[in-house]
Amino acid sequence: MERFELHPLLAADCRPVGDLALSHVLLLNDCRYPWAILVPRRAAVREIYQLDDADRRCLLEESCLLGEFMMRAFRGDKLNIGALGNLVPQLHLHHVIRNEADPAWPGPVWGHSAAVPYAEGLLAERVALLRDGLGLEG
Amino acid sequence: MERFELHPLLAADCRPVGDLALSHVLLLNDCRYPWAILVPRRAAVREIYQLDDADRRCLLEESCLLGEFMMRAFRGDKLNIGALGNLVPQLHLHHVIRNEADPAWPGPVWGHSAAVPYAEGLLAERVALLRDGLGLEG
Repeated sequence: MERFELHPLLAADCRPVGDLALSHVLLLNDCRYPWAILVPRRAAVREIYQLDDADRRCLLEESCLLGEFMMRAFRGDKLNIGALGNLVPQLHLHHVIRNEADPAWPGPVWGHSAAVPYAEGLLAERVALLRDGLGLEG
Repeated sequence: MERFELHPLLAADCRPVGDLALSHVLLLNDCRYPWAILVPRRAAVREIYQLDDADRRCLLEESCLLGEFMMRAFRGDKLNIGALGNLVPQLHLHHVIRNEADPAWPGPVWGHSAAVPYAEGLLAERVALLRDGLGLEG
């Protein structure tokens, strides 16, 4: 059986937050949006429907846990969830907190403009906040 | 309890396909992409995490059924799933079959360009194909 390895493009664009039961949690390095990504640790899966029933449900619960926490923590106006993966052939689920004052509002964040990296202190702070909120080890 | 009514913007942009256990199935009137939308028949819900456990699971199963069928029927290269809803305040889940030859590839379809309506015969044909594939009444 093929071993799961995080796709290098996701590794390059994100900071690891920690591991839920099924998924890696990543924070995208774009300071304009609180933007986390779930990556199920399953090799060779590109679509949600390719997961078995137990994994599908686990991903759903992890998505709801993450999304609800982020909406509260970052006082979002709307949560945007997306499974695109046209360029990265590994299943990953975006969770983006949107605000009416954000640069892409009300359009989609995908394809809008290049990421603006965090200052290091802010990135570490946000990772810690997510870790705490999701009950993950530091 | 508030009664569910399909949001008028969704009704205007789509053709109804039929009803699954939880969700209305709609086909977006854009001939460039096979693009279906699930709308859970629950009033005043804007985020997936606001659904109760049973509805969450039902939506997930309906999404997998729809997405897998569409990928096969339309020979897609990739399925794009999105819950955005920045403009339409009613939970709805996009399912878009992407092909490497489509106008927005590999970017997102959301925000790319205005829809190109179907010729009437083709729209009816595609609605019928979806109805059949999902086991819905005509």
